[in-house]
Amino acid sequence: MNVYRCPENPIIEPKDVTPWQAGYEVIGAFNTGVTRLGDEIILLIRVAERPASSNPDIEYTAVYDVEKKQIAVKEFSKKDSLLDFSDPRMTITPEGKFLTSLSHFRIARSKDGIHFEIDDKPCMSPATAYETFGLEDPRISLIGDTYYITYVAVSPLGVTTALASTKDFGSIERHGIIFCPDNKDVVLFPEKIEGKYYAIHRPVTPLFEKYEMWIAESNDLKHWGNHHYLMGSAEGTFDCHRLGASAVPFRTDEGWLEVYHGVDDDNRYCLGAVLFDIKEPWKIIGRSDKPILAPETDYEIEGFFGNVVFNCGLLCEEGKLRIYYGVADTSIAYAEISLQEVMDSLK
Amino acid sequence: MNVYRCPENPIIEPKDVTPWQAGYEVIGAFNTGVTRLGDEIILLIRVAERPASSNPDIEYTAVYDVEKKQIAVKEFSKKDSLLDFSDPRMTITPEGKFLTSLSHFRIARSKDGIHFEIDDKPCMSPATAYETFGLEDPRISLIGDTYYITYVAVSPLGVTTALASTKDFGSIERHGIIFCPDNKDVVLFPEKIEGKYYAIHRPVTPLFEKYEMWIAESNDLKHWGNHHYLMGSAEGTFDCHRLGASAVPFRTDEGWLEVYHGVDDDNRYCLGAVLFDIKEPWKIIGRSDKPILAPETDYEIEGFFGNVVFNCGLLCEEGKLRIYYGVADTSIAYAEISLQEVMDSLK
Repeated sequence: MNVYRCPENPIIEPKDVTPWQAGYEVIGAFNTGVTRLGDEIILLIRVAERPASSNPDIEYTAVYDVEKKQIAVKEFSKKDSLLDFSDPRMTITPEGKFLTSLSHFRIARSKDGIHFEIDDKPCMSPATAYETFGLEDPRISLIGDTYYITYVAVSPLGVTTALASTKDFGSIERHGIIFCPDNKDVVLFPEKIEGKYYAIHRPVTPLFEKYEMWIAESNDLKHWGNHHYLMGSAEGTFDCHRLGASAVPFRTDEGWLEVYHGVDDDNRYCLGAVLFDIKEPWKIIGRSDKPILAPETDYEIEGFFGNVVFNCGLLCEEGKLRIYYGVADTSIAYAEISLQEVMDSLK
Repeated sequence: MNVYRCPENPIIEPKDVTPWQAGYEVIGAFNTGVTRLGDEIILLIRVAERPASSNPDIEYTAVYDVEKKQIAVKEFSKKDSLLDFSDPRMTITPEGKFLTSLSHFRIARSKDGIHFEIDDKPCMSPATAYETFGLEDPRISLIGDTYYITYVAVSPLGVTTALASTKDFGSIERHGIIFCPDNKDVVLFPEKIEGKYYAIHRPVTPLFEKYEMWIAESNDLKHWGNHHYLMGSAEGTFDCHRLGASAVPFRTDEGWLEVYHGVDDDNRYCLGAVLFDIKEPWKIIGRSDKPILAPETDYEIEGFFGNVVFNCGLLCEEGKLRIYYGVADTSIAYAEISLQEVMDSLK
């Protein structure tokens, strides 16, 4: 696959983002939804912050306190043998697991799609009991004249997917939890298909230890049912360990094209592509057996959680996939891939 | 709590049930939905069967083959050191987990509520890709003139909850998966509340290792949304490890009464009670701090999976809870408890 990577990559880094909370540092500005509004490209960026610390022996963790409506800080001693710091993304304590950063969403705007102006303040930040550990990985589907945002709401109650909407990215309205825990990587098809809305989602079966794609239908985007298994991991390839939807699927002449992420046994995150039938989106027409994008560059391989390219949105324009993707759970990069080349690669 | 246990308990045992498949043995006739139809009490019984084996070194496991539309048998050598037989309910193999029995549903009818005539054939048996490991734990909600059955559909794709309906327990219509994996212990409130249907469900968050009750709403019983966390385990008591809805909730003067099951750290299953607000069923008014029914008798303590009382349905009649409950994942017992005494016990 011929991938054009923007020479200015990463196009957005943590240092480009003003911390929301005083005394905090931004450690990630990475997984991002993308859409067009007027003559601008809009990114809806997951920004991860944590309290800045000058004491290397203490880990400070921010958690939203839903009753006090403010961020509270917890301290963990790195010398405490009862605590497990081995995963940079979470701290495991006898009291439970805590995420090492708290994520919110920030809007960025650009006319050229490369140089973005990033808001100083969040457009969405933790506000409910389901969001006390943050908001993650937003996807934007433009349906009619409304932008629908699916996002991961995390709290000790579980990893859920919630829905929000906006007409203009000025005010954003929340519509509650549409997929109960644990369920993430939810993307909404951008139009009704034969009278129904569809979503790809990624529930978890801990009993059988699978993290795979399902599809559900809805009449109103808020209530979901008729769940069907959609696509599982393939042995011996880039998505052998787990997979989930990434970009919002988009219409092509041959079917709905979905750019998804696959994880292998070494926890390497790549992007693949899958084509679904245009009228029966639960039917797979073609699928990558190799990644369309894999971590190769320094900024993709090294970072907070390395060896990761992760996509939450793209634009398909002028025969190209214009992919905004999180790299190493740290920054945002931009790449272009020929749509035709992706289509030709599907088996 | 004063519990009247029927002297004829267990009222239904595996030996009372004719095997569905030739050459099979019934090893469980236990968790059962219950309702009234005309002048009869109807049980919808989970019947667990496995191939009868005369060879103690081989375990035979039945799995529904959805393509061939028939039951297939797998053989596992008990001497194979790669296989794990430590849990009587499942065999863990390098190929995946397999259940040691295959469950279907059987109807039983009674006029006196104690002596039942059990159908020779299943009324529902595995028929879809989501049911290849069987159907489990049915609940019956009479809504209008239709009996709605929520049941657990198990396959390697996960532990899901499906919906079916019937007017007469003659023909039963399937309506597909309403809660994606892993999600079980789903009960439907028996009427609309302020214009919405409600279900209690029990999703799983493997990340935070919780198995607790949530509530969702629906306009049509098939599509579910607006998920809210409902009730979690309480420390130091009978439901400290996990819990889930059991009986279909029923209306009382003070609120919706739900008999649920709680599991403690020793894997002992008890029944508790919780009262929800009549108009806002996501609000808890009162809750047991002790079980209303706990495993005490031989038939509750000993069996296929002992120390278990598990309920999928009851009748509230003449001021009594008439509880049909699975014992030790083996048989069905019958008990009566005063409604007033249960109400008085709620904190």
